[in-house]
Amino acid sequence: MKKVGVGIIGLGPRAETLLASLKFMTEGIAVTAICDFKEERIALLRKKILEAKMDAPHEYRDYHRLIADPAVDAVLIPTSWNSHLLIAQECLAQGKYAGIEVGGAASIDELWQLVRAAESTGVSCMMLENCCYGRNELMMLNMARKGLFGELIHCECGYLHDLSDMAWREPDKERTIHNRFRNGDLYPTHGLGPIAKILRINRGNRFLTISSTASKARGFAAAAKAHGMGDVTYNEGDIVLSVIRCANGETILLRHGVSLPRPYSRCQLVQGTRGLWEEDAKGIFIEGISKTEERIDSAGNPYTVHTWDPVDSFYEKYDHPIWKKYRDKQIGEHGGMDYLTLSAFAEAVREHKPTPIDVYDVAAWMSVTALSEQSVALGGQVLPFPDFTDGKWIARKPEEPSAWALDEIFEDLQR
Amino acid sequence: MKKVGVGIIGLGPRAETLLASLKFMTEGIAVTAICDFKEERIALLRKKILEAKMDAPHEYRDYHRLIADPAVDAVLIPTSWNSHLLIAQECLAQGKYAGIEVGGAASIDELWQLVRAAESTGVSCMMLENCCYGRNELMMLNMARKGLFGELIHCECGYLHDLSDMAWREPDKERTIHNRFRNGDLYPTHGLGPIAKILRINRGNRFLTISSTASKARGFAAAAKAHGMGDVTYNEGDIVLSVIRCANGETILLRHGVSLPRPYSRCQLVQGTRGLWEEDAKGIFIEGISKTEERIDSAGNPYTVHTWDPVDSFYEKYDHPIWKKYRDKQIGEHGGMDYLTLSAFAEAVREHKPTPIDVYDVAAWMSVTALSEQSVALGGQVLPFPDFTDGKWIARKPEEPSAWALDEIFEDLQR
Repeated sequence: MKKVGVGIIGLGPRAETLLASLKFMTEGIAVTAICDFKEERIALLRKKILEAKMDAPHEYRDYHRLIADPAVDAVLIPTSWNSHLLIAQECLAQGKYAGIEVGGAASIDELWQLVRAAESTGVSCMMLENCCYGRNELMMLNMARKGLFGELIHCECGYLHDLSDMAWREPDKERTIHNRFRNGDLYPTHGLGPIAKILRINRGNRFLTISSTASKARGFAAAAKAHGMGDVTYNEGDIVLSVIRCANGETILLRHGVSLPRPYSRCQLVQGTRGLWEEDAKGIFIEGISKTEERIDSAGNPYTVHTWDPVDSFYEKYDHPIWKKYRDKQIGEHGGMDYLTLSAFAEAVREHKPTPIDVYDVAAWMSVTALSEQSVALGGQVLPFPDFTDGKWIARKPEEPSAWALDEIFEDLQR
Repeated sequence: MKKVGVGIIGLGPRAETLLASLKFMTEGIAVTAICDFKEERIALLRKKILEAKMDAPHEYRDYHRLIADPAVDAVLIPTSWNSHLLIAQECLAQGKYAGIEVGGAASIDELWQLVRAAESTGVSCMMLENCCYGRNELMMLNMARKGLFGELIHCECGYLHDLSDMAWREPDKERTIHNRFRNGDLYPTHGLGPIAKILRINRGNRFLTISSTASKARGFAAAAKAHGMGDVTYNEGDIVLSVIRCANGETILLRHGVSLPRPYSRCQLVQGTRGLWEEDAKGIFIEGISKTEERIDSAGNPYTVHTWDPVDSFYEKYDHPIWKKYRDKQIGEHGGMDYLTLSAFAEAVREHKPTPIDVYDVAAWMSVTALSEQSVALGGQVLPFPDFTDGKWIARKPEEPSAWALDEIFEDLQR
């Protein structure tokens, strides 16, 4: 197996987390170059790479030079939200695959620039959206493609995670500062990525409109104040709701909430004409599989009662082929999701194929952040999504079959 | 105790259900008159009233005459969605209390007419929204008023109930026909009523804007076709989402879905700065009561994990006073909720006091249907709510203390 030479630009905590998975992948991936503008971060990552018995990489403080390095086939870009799209654009323009981290766009134009750069060389920009490779998300994709939910009608998703301690633990962190100044869905892709895949966005379907609404903002300011930081203003509403309509008539509800105390949830829901999965209910209901009773009310009229099945009871039969193959390994961080995501990226680079999550997915998913900010600012005004595919979404087919294709199973069904 | 003379207009199935509760309330309520334009319905209800050993009521085919009957202090109006507001308006104008059933308005003007009629005589129009008297809904109101959730930020609610069999069992039923022709949140109050009470709508807060979005419509038509009804068009989207913003900055997500197979849910969620209740998770998380752990991730950074407590574990300490008093009785239909609702209505009539749910509540809650239809038709356009209180919402106090006041507990706190 030809080793893929990977460069990493931006050596903060997320680079360390990626390395924790990459060190199990040295058969197929070599970290050939690292780059940061801070010398101490380069030193830290060098140390960790050597501790993991990996070869010493080239070191750069100028990312343009890393991108130009012939030992680099692909670049991972765990840099700040305001810089990774610009860097990715340069990688693509130079014909190098780019793997960017999750997050949202600040403007629609930076996404157009990314799309045009990818189109100019034909290489892919993949978002390393590990939640697309989560066990439940993969199973729902599998079940959706096998038709268990019937025709898809409505989905929900989001990112509900109490990060209010950022306000006092890391007041100068980039993410904290974004929450101070912006107001929109700043972190849409953990929830929306898997749902977009299930709804075939950019492959026969697309996001059409969005309307976003923010609640008042209390959580971060209260956390800051309670920890002696004084009065700090946070613009980000504690809850931001976005409602998206798709070209084929499906609705998506997307939530963002990172400043209030609550158990973690990505609040996923996939609902079709024959049943649904709901993360928070820990349940799946499928007509013909799950229990449905006919009862009679006190006035003698019949009515129907449907009952949830536990999600767990579907794993054996419906785990996605990718998860089945790797589920006992649980390699690296985030329950193995990072490993699966990086493996998919590396294989696409090695074979010079499209990545399972491509530049049109990146553009559509990340545009939600910029559009939701605009819609919130306009009091919930409905806004249109740009069509980053220039109309190609209508005819684009599911991914080509490969070991990592999220959609291969669909192709299997058609054959 | 002076008996309240109650007339019933509209003797369909819901009248029978009300009677099933009223027959346990003969100490305080007498059914003095009944009215329907169909003789066989009058005969059926007469039979049931006599079987319950209640006195024979006056019988009318003309509802104007029932309203004028001096034996009638208050009128229950379980008629069709398109007629109950008109009839209620006449009751109010004649100085008789009106108890209307749940549902939504077709126009904003019919609600203004209702409000002006109530204001002209000072009697109340109560919606018999039994879910306001549900155990969990009452407990959440109690917990909210005691401050357990902190400052309220976001609420969710809805009506998710598979009624697709209407399409073939009762194709000519009024509700079925509304779903054929309309597209909006046709049944908002089971979910929204309790949430409106918790958020103090019309008493220091109000609904400000709404944006509604409908998914495609498949469920009803498929059910009709599968049962030999041929191709019948239903306009109502399988899922209708409405996002409401309140004057004090809270957001509300409201769902309507009655045509897809799924377990029943009113999907209630009440979230504040200190915790939340989520119906579908069957959980409550309250800071300082529920479990919160500090953990360390693989990069050495601390993070916080919050865990749900079961809803059941809060009943003993936080059941609402009304529920505590009646919980062992479970009288009548819908787990006792109808009994509690009718008792509250009857006491207000007897004491000539405002009802706990009043004409401003009715107008605000029911306006959601008309506004959501308009917003859906405009592709999700944000629309303003009328202020049916003409500005009185700012200064209106919580209800006066009484045995049935939903909000009495709040007054207790302030004293």
